[in-house]
Order: sequence, then structure tokens, then C-alpha cells
Amino acid sequence: MNGRAKNTIGWIGVDWGTTHLRAWVFGVDGNLIDHLSSDDGMGNLAQEQFEGALLALIGDRLNARTKTPVLCCGMAGSRQGWAEAPYTTVPCPPPGVAHAVHVATRDARLDVRILPGVKQEKPADVMRGEETQIAGYLARDPGFDGVLCLPGTHTKWVHVSAGEIVSFRTYMTGELFALLSGHSVLRHGMSQGGWDDAAFRQAIDDALSRPQECAGTLFQLRAERLLFELPAAAARSRLSGTLLGLEFAAARPYWLGRRLVVIGTTELCDIYLAAFEQVGVSAETTAGDAMTIAGLSAAWKSITECPT
Amino acid sequence: MNGRAKNTIGWIGVDWGTTHLRAWVFGVDGNLIDHLSSDDGMGNLAQEQFEGALLALIGDRLNARTKTPVLCCGMAGSRQGWAEAPYTTVPCPPPGVAHAVHVATRDARLDVRILPGVKQEKPADVMRGEETQIAGYLARDPGFDGVLCLPGTHTKWVHVSAGEIVSFRTYMTGELFALLSGHSVLRHGMSQGGWDDAAFRQAIDDALSRPQECAGTLFQLRAERLLFELPAAAARSRLSGTLLGLEFAAARPYWLGRRLVVIGTTELCDIYLAAFEQVGVSAETTAGDAMTIAGLSAAWKSITECPT
Repeated sequence: MNGRAKNTIGWIGVDWGTTHLRAWVFGVDGNLIDHLSSDDGMGNLAQEQFEGALLALIGDRLNARTKTPVLCCGMAGSRQGWAEAPYTTVPCPPPGVAHAVHVATRDARLDVRILPGVKQEKPADVMRGEETQIAGYLARDPGFDGVLCLPGTHTKWVHVSAGEIVSFRTYMTGELFALLSGHSVLRHGMSQGGWDDAAFRQAIDDALSRPQECAGTLFQLRAERLLFELPAAAARSRLSGTLLGLEFAAARPYWLGRRLVVIGTTELCDIYLAAFEQVGVSAETTAGDAMTIAGLSAAWKSITECPT
Repeated sequence: MNGRAKNTIGWIGVDWGTTHLRAWVFGVDGNLIDHLSSDDGMGNLAQEQFEGALLALIGDRLNARTKTPVLCCGMAGSRQGWAEAPYTTVPCPPPGVAHAVHVATRDARLDVRILPGVKQEKPADVMRGEETQIAGYLARDPGFDGVLCLPGTHTKWVHVSAGEIVSFRTYMTGELFALLSGHSVLRHGMSQGGWDDAAFRQAIDDALSRPQECAGTLFQLRAERLLFELPAAAARSRLSGTLLGLEFAAARPYWLGRRLVVIGTTELCDIYLAAFEQVGVSAETTAGDAMTIAGLSAAWKSITECPT
């Protein structure tokens, strides 16, 4: 037990993703005290390892004599996670604490709840974690009517209206980019850094206007590297633009004629903003972490207002 | 030195790819005596390791007192290979022994030549190895006018006319399938075996008719697995059909209204034949190995007829 933390912690919010575990520690006064993170993502853990991973990260912050509420979102609630928190189904508001599952723990200092994800039956789709960012956004702008775009490994496009998630689609653009740039034959001609904005924008245009021709453009990056020493930054930017152009081609019903907000890291928001500019629509951006914190806080507020 | 091989070997043909090294041993009478292979692909070898890898495979077959001609095709001739054999440029016949590079060896029993690949400048494309299969096919049917489709990790579509490679395009369909089915989030719902032909064909139709919507269909496989227990065989077949449909959408100018021959393994030929059937065109098939042997043999014949 750590003296400094004794009886000063109000609650802890946790975003437990596939590759990372992140926690925000709040004081009894509701102020954010600390941010902690580790690589103990859900993907590396067996069910019986979750409590230990959580204690390794926040154990020394817990109150010694009272239970500290811990509110989690993300993959910890999946079937392969700590405890399954069954999806709510669209159309629905982002699920709140009333839908959270209580997890039994060996350590008596813990009081853990996991928020569920959201599912859509047709076309089949799922999210876990993004619904909490959406809740965070709606806490700030309850009347929002438009589309939230949440870029990442699996980018989500989410139609939100009247406080509800109406429909959504997921695109594996981030994972495809990581696989192709890091693990395919194209990796030989890709730099880790460097950006060629003109090449990126041209590739978006090409993919959007002629998606049927995209399959051939991938190996062409390799051939241009071999034959004409295509610079690595151009290759990387064209790959990104081609994959993003295909995503934008498929997501057209989401971005055409709607109010658009991108929720993510600065780097991803900038890439998506450039893509939106290229297709001639405007979008706002907001930081993903802030929305996660706001969503967890909104759920926590509903616990304290209506204790379960 | 192995007595049984002494003075009985005429020449050795080698297909040196990225992941495999394969050799065919021919007698002085021209008959195929043996087929050897190892995992010493070009991708695992530094330049100074090629001779050792070749000797490990065929060393005990070499004639003791005379040089044994070894004729190679494939990635051994790339810049990162044993010795660079510069590409010939389309339109051109498959390069013959006149374009091969002689490789200096430490072992006096070896007389090694490497056949070059073929390049296209616009759109940029390259092949190394397939040109020898094309030469093999043309040795059998010199007047062929049509398209050869060579499926693999990087599938080639090649327009051949009047004994020349006129143009070609490469699609990374095989590598994309391997990455997505083995290394992405989709791997959780994919069996190693099993096939759902109806699902495969529907996915081809969907990708061909609406390529702009394909980006969303990938994650849908994952979601259907989670929500509706989509069978692994169906998931695998739909992934294959989607990627192949995108390839066929891009390669349409190659398969529309031409004579078509697929050169490859039985498994890949069957998949491509089903795809051709689905788009309503007919195609012949022929075994890839046989075409490699025929192509190397044709090049060997030109050495013996016009020694260099």
C-alpha cells in the first residue's frame, strides 16, 4: 500500500484495447490526477491474467480500506477478454453503466465494471471502445447530428443522431497499411518516416475515381522502386492514399452531405483531414484520448447519480 | 564425388525463387533424371552464400572431371540475388541464353548461367521466373496469341503475341490473402482448409460489380464470425473471392475477349478456373512446373545449338 494514494482516489477509468492498457486516475474531487499505461493489451492476456495486469498498473494507487471503482471500456469486455459484456444493438445510445458487467476480483480493493460494445446486425459490424469515445463526444455536444469518423487500426464511420448510434461501418485500412508497408514485398521500398502530400492526394483521387483498378497499383509501387528508384516517402504516401481512397469510396454514404467530426490522434486526424479536403468536404477534429476520458467520466457520473 | 553421377549428367536446370530452390537434373541424353529442392530461397541468402546453397543441393550430382552446365531462372538474377541479370524490356520474346549472365564460381565443376527477367516501363512492372514458364509454353505452342495468367504470390497476367511478351500486369492477390488470412484480425475466423464454393463465387460477383464497396467487406467477415458464427470455410472463401474479384476487376482488359491459359499448380488453376467460369469466359490450364522445365530446356537447347 502506498501512503500517498491512501483514501485520495475517487475512481479509475480504463481503456483496455487489444495491444495497450491505459488508465486515468481521478481524485475524489473528480480531477484527473494521473495517466498510466502498459503493454498488457487484451491480446496478450489469458482470462485469469487480467486482474494481475490491472494491479501491476494501478495497484499502488488503490485505496487501502475502501473499494476503488474501476470503470473499463474496450476489448477487456470481449468474449476472449476478462468478462464478456454483451453488445448493445444499433440504433441505441452509447451503452452506459446500466449495461456494464461487474467483474468478481480476488483483490478486495477493486470494484471493476466493464462497459459493453455496440453491434450492428446488417451489415454485420462491431465496436468496443469507440462507443465510449462517442459517449464522450455526445457529453459535450448532446444534439450532434452527423458522422463521427474514428480512424485507427480498424477505422469506424458512425452515423449519430438524436443521441443514438444509428449505423456504422468498419474499414481495416490501418491494419492493411501496417501489413503491406511492414510485412509484404512493398516493405523494401517504404521508409518509416517521410511524406509526399502530392503523391498521397493523387492516389486518393485515383482510388476514388477508379477503385476497380486499385489491385494493380500495389505491386506497381514495388516495380517503380526497382526500375525508377521511387522515393520511399512517395511509395508510402501512395500506399496510404490508395488504401484511404478505397475506404472513402466505400464510405461515401457516410461522408457525403453530413456534418463530419474526426476523433483520433493528431497524426491520423491530419491524414483524414487531407483526404476530406481532397474530396471537397470539410470536417472538424477532436482528440481521441480526450473523448475516451470524457466518455468514461460520463459513465462514472451516471454511477454516482444512480448507484447500481 | 559420387560414382553414380560421374560423367552421366548433361546439364542442370534451376528455378531459384524467393523462398525455394529447385533443380532438375538432366542426363547427357536429355532425359530428366531427378528433381531436387531445398528451402534455400534467394530471400534467405547473402550473395556469397548462393554457391554453397547450390552445391548443398546438387554437389553430389556434378561430373567430377568436366564442368556441368547449370542454367538458372528466377530471383537469383535480381540485384539482391547471386548476380544481377538485367531485365529485357517489353515488347520482347522471353529472354534466352544470349541474355543470360555467366557467374564466376569457386568450384571448378560448375558452369552457371542465370537467365534475366522482363520489365515493363509503363505501367512499371517486373517478372523473374515467369518469363521462363512463358518460354516453355511458347516452345509447345509458338503461334500462341492470347493471355497467359500465372497465379501465385504475385499473379502475372501476360499478353503474348507473335512470340513476344507484349504487356503484363502483376497483382499481389496471393500475398494479400496470406497476410489477411494468417496475420490480420481475420485469422481468428479462418480455417486452414475447407471451401465454400457458393460463398466464393458470390464474393467474386460482388467485388467485380461493386469494387468501390470492397473495403467494408473485409471487417464484415470478422463481425459475422463474432455475431453469427460464420463458418471458417465460408470466411476463407469469401476473402479469396473478394480479393480475386478485385484482381479480375483490374485485369478485365486482359481476360475480356482473349484466348486464356492459366499456368500454375492444380490448386491455383482450379481457383482461377472457377473465377473465369463465374465471369463467363473459358480458359485452359497447364502445369507450372512443366512449363518451367520446358522453358529451361528450350534455353538449354539454344546453348547447345549456338554455344556461347
